[in-house]
Amino acid sequence: MDGFSFSTEVRVRFAETDAQGIVHNSNYAIWLELARVEYLERHAGGYNALREQGIEALVTETYIRFGVPVHFDDRVRVWARCVDLRGARFRYEYRLQRGEERVADAWTQHACVDRKTFRPTRIPGWLVEAIGRAEADDARRRPPAAENRAAAR
Amino acid sequence: MDGFSFSTEVRVRFAETDAQGIVHNSNYAIWLELARVEYLERHAGGYNALREQGIEALVTETYIRFGVPVHFDDRVRVWARCVDLRGARFRYEYRLQRGEERVADAWTQHACVDRKTFRPTRIPGWLVEAIGRAEADDARRRPPAAENRAAAR
Amino acid sequence: MDGFSFSTEVRVRFAETDAQGIVHNSNYAIWLELARVEYLERHAGGYNALREQGIEALVTETYIRFGVPVHFDDRVRVWARCVDLRGARFRYEYRLQRGEERVADAWTQHACVDRKTFRPTRIPGWLVEAIGRAEADDARRRPPAAENRAAAR
Amino acid sequence: MDGFSFSTEVRVRFAETDAQGIVHNSNYAIWLELARVEYLERHAGGYNALREQGIEALVTETYIRFGVPVHFDDRVRVWARCVDLRGARFRYEYRLQRGEERVADAWTQHACVDRKTFRPTRIPGWLVEAIGRAEADDARRRPPAAENRAAAR
Repeated sequence: MDGFSFSTEVRVRFAETDAQGIVHNSNYAIWLELARVEYLERHAGGYNALREQGIEALVTETYIRFGVPVHFDDRVRVWARCVDLRGARFRYEYRLQRGEERVADAWTQHACVDRKTFRPTRIPGWLVEAIGRAEADDARRRPPAAENRAAAR
Repeated sequence: MDGFSFSTEVRVRFAETDAQGIVHNSNYAIWLELARVEYLERHAGGYNALREQGIEALVTETYIRFGVPVHFDDRVRVWARCVDLRGARFRYEYRLQRGEERVADAWTQHACVDRKTFRPTRIPGWLVEAIGRAEADDARRRPPAAENRAAAR
Repeated sequence: MDGFSFSTEVRVRFAETDAQGIVHNSNYAIWLELARVEYLERHAGGYNALREQGIEALVTETYIRFGVPVHFDDRVRVWARCVDLRGARFRYEYRLQRGEERVADAWTQHACVDRKTFRPTRIPGWLVEAIGRAEADDARRRPPAAENRAAAR
Repeated sequence: MDGFSFSTEVRVRFAETDAQGIVHNSNYAIWLELARVEYLERHAGGYNALREQGIEALVTETYIRFGVPVHFDDRVRVWARCVDLRGARFRYEYRLQRGEERVADAWTQHACVDRKTFRPTRIPGWLVEAIGRAEADDARRRPPAAENRAAAR
């Protein structure tokens, strides 16, 4: 996927569907979270490594644009990348696909806070570095955009 | 409702339905919880009064028998009573109705635990008394059990 | 609330909280839906009136900006207005408040579709008119913005 | 696991936790469903094979006994077996484990219904046979109980 090096697959649960016969929109936010959790696990020791340092990452903004609706038992691939780490803040961008069909585009904005006071606290240095490495590796692997788009087809 | 003095109403959310067009069974457990929370609020200062004393009430068993399925925007009345308080343990019994139709019968078993250690801890005396009063008032209003059972048929 | 004539109250369910001790972000999308459902009920015969005509309204975009986190048993007032009805599309805007504190700002974009084919279909005339009346009434009742803001305090 | 030949693994989602810091009890019913879906996929062509014949399987009863609470990112193994197929009805039994610890025991009772009328309809013969084969194979593979328990360690 153009510009994304990480992805994970979600299989639609029956409980995630609604009376329209498709996945209820609120579940997409949960799938984005699953992708973040696995991203952190692969690149930075997991979300619990943050929590053990007394830090929680809050969601401060969510944007989702829905494409083709998805159904029970569909497989949805969630591509994710972490960008714009600054102070306490960072951002994830996502692309959700079912095969070649676009299921959604999304981004979420986050802030690290102290687990007890809920006051903003800087992203730990080790996490900034781990994510920097993960995304830089990706950038290096990435072909120029035009070829890349061609390859994605 | 025969044998129940407390009830609350739930209105079915669209998000609670599934691709069968009815409410997904997992949501009933949430409705039972809503009834317990409102029961405690009416009779004993609310669930947060327990939490402020460092106590959580865990669910240790759940049983639900499903009747007529319910749909988006239906109103479901949840009747609840608290029984069998002993040591750390207590039990709720429920009847769910949509008008005259039986939506479900259920019971849940609970244990009070210390919020930090999750070890069992006695139900506070004030809570035992408050529930005793609530259910005794109810028992006085209630007809004798035999008639009661007959009436339920 | 400045610019909003409709609101409804949500009481935070225990099941809506997460291990951060606050409401999980995915539930906000469900609260927005509750507000839409009650808005349609008050102004236009309910969402089921649409469904009975073979029409479903899909969510095509969601944006939420989170303010103060909310906790179990908090009361959250959800203000909502419906704007920009054009062809098959319409938009809702929201403000969520806990007392004077801002819990979230949000908007959702929607499209009416045929219930069977999921193809876009025009918003029925009666619905456009009902919403037009609802929002126009509101505009007429609304004092100039400056006084309005003062009144909201 | 003694008496079970099928299992699947669930990884606890952050969204499944609640303000007690543990998984909210309502999610167990969803995990039981995931196990049934994967069981049917492995042994009988998947739940959608039923739906395509105009049949839905409803949950008519649920019983869950909770053991050790589980937390974000825990892995829970869900063992499941299908028993007592008769007419329209069948039953699943479950054991949930985190390593050697018992997370829950559960059973659910089901009825096949016509997808449109919701009236009971016999379990299709091919499904009875597929499940019969699956569970019989298991019984044959199963060592005597004592060895079995030893082998599970």
